[in-house]
Amino acid sequence: MALDTARLLITCPDAKGIIAAVAGFIVDNHGNILYADQHTDPLTGEFFMRVEIELAGFGLDEETFSAAWAGIADRFGMTWRVHWGTKVKRMAILVTKESHCVSDLLWRWSNRELMVDVPVVVGNHDLLADTVEGYGVEFRHQPVTRKTRETQEARVLEVLREAEVDFVVLARYMQVLSPAFVAEYPARIINIHHSFLPAFAGARPYHQAHERGVKLIGATSHYVTDELDQGPIIVQQTTPIGHRDTLDDLIRKGRDLERVVLANAVRLHVQDRILVSGNKTIVFD
Amino acid sequence: MALDTARLLITCPDAKGIIAAVAGFIVDNHGNILYADQHTDPLTGEFFMRVEIELAGFGLDEETFSAAWAGIADRFGMTWRVHWGTKVKRMAILVTKESHCVSDLLWRWSNRELMVDVPVVVGNHDLLADTVEGYGVEFRHQPVTRKTRETQEARVLEVLREAEVDFVVLARYMQVLSPAFVAEYPARIINIHHSFLPAFAGARPYHQAHERGVKLIGATSHYVTDELDQGPIIVQQTTPIGHRDTLDDLIRKGRDLERVVLANAVRLHVQDRILVSGNKTIVFD
Amino acid sequence: MALDTARLLITCPDAKGIIAAVAGFIVDNHGNILYADQHTDPLTGEFFMRVEIELAGFGLDEETFSAAWAGIADRFGMTWRVHWGTKVKRMAILVTKESHCVSDLLWRWSNRELMVDVPVVVGNHDLLADTVEGYGVEFRHQPVTRKTRETQEARVLEVLREAEVDFVVLARYMQVLSPAFVAEYPARIINIHHSFLPAFAGARPYHQAHERGVKLIGATSHYVTDELDQGPIIVQQTTPIGHRDTLDDLIRKGRDLERVVLANAVRLHVQDRILVSGNKTIVFD
Amino acid sequence: MALDTARLLITCPDAKGIIAAVAGFIVDNHGNILYADQHTDPLTGEFFMRVEIELAGFGLDEETFSAAWAGIADRFGMTWRVHWGTKVKRMAILVTKESHCVSDLLWRWSNRELMVDVPVVVGNHDLLADTVEGYGVEFRHQPVTRKTRETQEARVLEVLREAEVDFVVLARYMQVLSPAFVAEYPARIINIHHSFLPAFAGARPYHQAHERGVKLIGATSHYVTDELDQGPIIVQQTTPIGHRDTLDDLIRKGRDLERVVLANAVRLHVQDRILVSGNKTIVFD
Repeated sequence: MALDTARLLITCPDAKGIIAAVAGFIVDNHGNILYADQHTDPLTGEFFMRVEIELAGFGLDEETFSAAWAGIADRFGMTWRVHWGTKVKRMAILVTKESHCVSDLLWRWSNRELMVDVPVVVGNHDLLADTVEGYGVEFRHQPVTRKTRETQEARVLEVLREAEVDFVVLARYMQVLSPAFVAEYPARIINIHHSFLPAFAGARPYHQAHERGVKLIGATSHYVTDELDQGPIIVQQTTPIGHRDTLDDLIRKGRDLERVVLANAVRLHVQDRILVSGNKTIVFD
Repeated sequence: MALDTARLLITCPDAKGIIAAVAGFIVDNHGNILYADQHTDPLTGEFFMRVEIELAGFGLDEETFSAAWAGIADRFGMTWRVHWGTKVKRMAILVTKESHCVSDLLWRWSNRELMVDVPVVVGNHDLLADTVEGYGVEFRHQPVTRKTRETQEARVLEVLREAEVDFVVLARYMQVLSPAFVAEYPARIINIHHSFLPAFAGARPYHQAHERGVKLIGATSHYVTDELDQGPIIVQQTTPIGHRDTLDDLIRKGRDLERVVLANAVRLHVQDRILVSGNKTIVFD
Repeated sequence: MALDTARLLITCPDAKGIIAAVAGFIVDNHGNILYADQHTDPLTGEFFMRVEIELAGFGLDEETFSAAWAGIADRFGMTWRVHWGTKVKRMAILVTKESHCVSDLLWRWSNRELMVDVPVVVGNHDLLADTVEGYGVEFRHQPVTRKTRETQEARVLEVLREAEVDFVVLARYMQVLSPAFVAEYPARIINIHHSFLPAFAGARPYHQAHERGVKLIGATSHYVTDELDQGPIIVQQTTPIGHRDTLDDLIRKGRDLERVVLANAVRLHVQDRILVSGNKTIVFD
Repeated sequence: MALDTARLLITCPDAKGIIAAVAGFIVDNHGNILYADQHTDPLTGEFFMRVEIELAGFGLDEETFSAAWAGIADRFGMTWRVHWGTKVKRMAILVTKESHCVSDLLWRWSNRELMVDVPVVVGNHDLLADTVEGYGVEFRHQPVTRKTRETQEARVLEVLREAEVDFVVLARYMQVLSPAFVAEYPARIINIHHSFLPAFAGARPYHQAHERGVKLIGATSHYVTDELDQGPIIVQQTTPIGHRDTLDDLIRKGRDLERVVLANAVRLHVQDRILVSGNKTIVFD
């Protein structure tokens, strides 16, 4: 996970000459392209591109990039953003009672596999306080009841703002976020759902899976949108099960899936490898 | 696939002493158990067992088994059946236009991987006649329109009866069977659905999958019941896809899944490895 | 993971009537069989069986079982052992510097996914002392140099003996154990090797894999024998890689494999699901 | 599989400005880039690129491309080739007795999944003549004994030359090719080996796998080089096995792997998605 690169992400209508223009711009500014990925959706005609540029020797920086780039962006009608690897992203984690996902993320962070800052973990229960604080990360308890949902959400948002958080991970956070909350972090809230979506959306997916008698269980990480479990999918994985597997076995096997699927989605987000188009993702891995 | 074994399949309420009684019965009749598998559903208290007995030396046969066995069956309230490997199952295949599943099944049959007889393949189109006849198997064309659904089904059933078919495989047969048809072959019609059920049931699952932006596609083989795509699942498998995969790529990758998933389900059925309980299967593989 | 069951593991020459005798014995002693698995190796004629018996109501216990069982064991020439679920196994973990496997095992243990006692973790480096002690488990530092190998091993063995350890997990322990050490825990030392054995045995398997240009990496857990990386394999798994994956990526992806593969092998061992025959395992999962 | 594109494949030392130069060249010649993939090997400093250009509107063709392109190729010291989709590749298949791989390839070809011409299949046995001819493809029987190896190979080569073959697929061809033969088709002979190489290279890999007691079997497709089973790997896949699987089960399960792995490698080759560097492949899929 290179701290010494800039990643330029582009969406625009497909046209001849985009790659040449982008690559020409970078070379004109003495940049070296480490990775360039592009994709054209044949149905919508949209063009997507991710370019990773070595910062060493590159003639532009956070202050000068926009002005220099504006010409090309305008010419092709681009929606774009650039991430500077030097600016480490700040990740908040929201939890309830289950520890496997948050423990896994914090372990990866403490082992420098995930290059982020983790200013705060917020829990609507306080069960995981010790686990989180054991990693030297602040834990904030924000309990919630049916009646206090709105005020609790407001308080959580305040914590995230104070912590200057860039994106939010729902590590088995058992609360549905309001559209107002989601709007604060568009395509920047990552959820893990413990089923192979769109199968078994909603509550108790392992119960649903066990009931239906499927032969595989899955896990899905996706960006959160206003519609529950309907946001753009980032990573999915499945694992075989059989008639001997009880509900508890499904939950146990599922944990191993969930933490890997969520960690992968977080890694892809942190490395700016995901573009969202409508309700789909383009993942340049 | 042993032709020289008998397979005894048992369902009954769980109780102490079932295995001892079954194993004792077999040894008393000079039988050798090659495989014995059992399962107890902790929720329903149902007990399931499959025993595969070497025919060589076994003191019972098709004519004498039932009477000898009745005592134990009664004592434990068993639902049971026994399959004699010497009696090769007769499989019919129903097709429409897609060739990959039927070609694969016929290839396995001709290479003696699938130990069945294939008296007939029925198509509601005649596109696959040459393929089927190239394997030396009779092809019967039974075209259908919206108006002729009932009479066509009756004719198909007649063909299957004449061919003395034991079970039916829907190898991408694009017609919904009526409850009356299904009732003729309970837990003996195997379908392949080109999605990871219960996701994307019904028509055009690859279109639905592409639309939803999933990162895996799947295939599901199941027994056909009155409710479309809701029958007991036998085998499921998934394969990764990405944003570059067009609908055509999904269809292509799906074909490789479908034929393997269907062939596995057929093999399990032929070897009498599947017990159905409610809407689930117990698969003793 | 049932604490309230006994697991009887049997190896003997195949013969008619074994299952009937075993099941009859259990029913005669008022036991209820929860699971019964058996396997006959068609090449060697060896018969293997695992029976899991509910303790509630069973008429035998640790003191009375052997005498009652001796008749059947002798009659069929059985090698056998019985594990009483009430007797929780004591697991030691040996580590060097890598934390992912030991952290994962301790996490599973602390979340009661792994029903064992962990009296001690021994490290030839002290880097992981905090991690281990954070879980409330004793960490013993036993440094080693080329010259002190023998005496260090003796000291480690002493620690294990004092801790009354039942089995040992090498959680990326970067030392080769002597035959004398291995002989103390036959089929009771579980190693995780970071390749798909037998490919890339020995040192630096990810380097070897990267060098060879394979398209999958693997992990293998196996019982330790006198020959390095040659012991009976318990669990193996692979994951896809591509040309973009650097050696660091292989190591990162491999970690996710290793901890799941090792945890599975440990679970199977703890639940007495593994029988060893020559250099192979029979795994009744 | 686009017939209406050109694919430009480039290898050269990494340098700033390559992508800009290539993309600029294409836009200057009124070409539209459909896909552009690139990779830099951080160890060797080699740069690899694949560009797929829409032929419609492109100002260059087979006759004019080289001269126009020479400037850029020289400037960056490129090794390069261009494939014109209009020129359908001619594939020969070499077989012995096993039918699953050749049947699968011919099925894909006849269903237009594989866009190639298949002028000839050569067998050192004549067992598969009917299968091949059933697809309307010429079968040439070229028997071989230990004594006639050299002359047989010469005859096979002659057949391939007459058929103006572009590349050769060894679909379970049980003969080792001489270096002289291999030299005629460098990186253009694709083999399927029925193991997860480098494990179980050489003869009877399923026997070796069964003997070793592995828990997965694999299949590997690779380009043939002078060293047996040592060539650059294109595709690998594995599937789980267990103690119940006999050698025959391994062979059966392996067939399903082999045909998918080989078909994928052939597809990648036909679509010009593979670059070879030393003993590794870069696969732009």
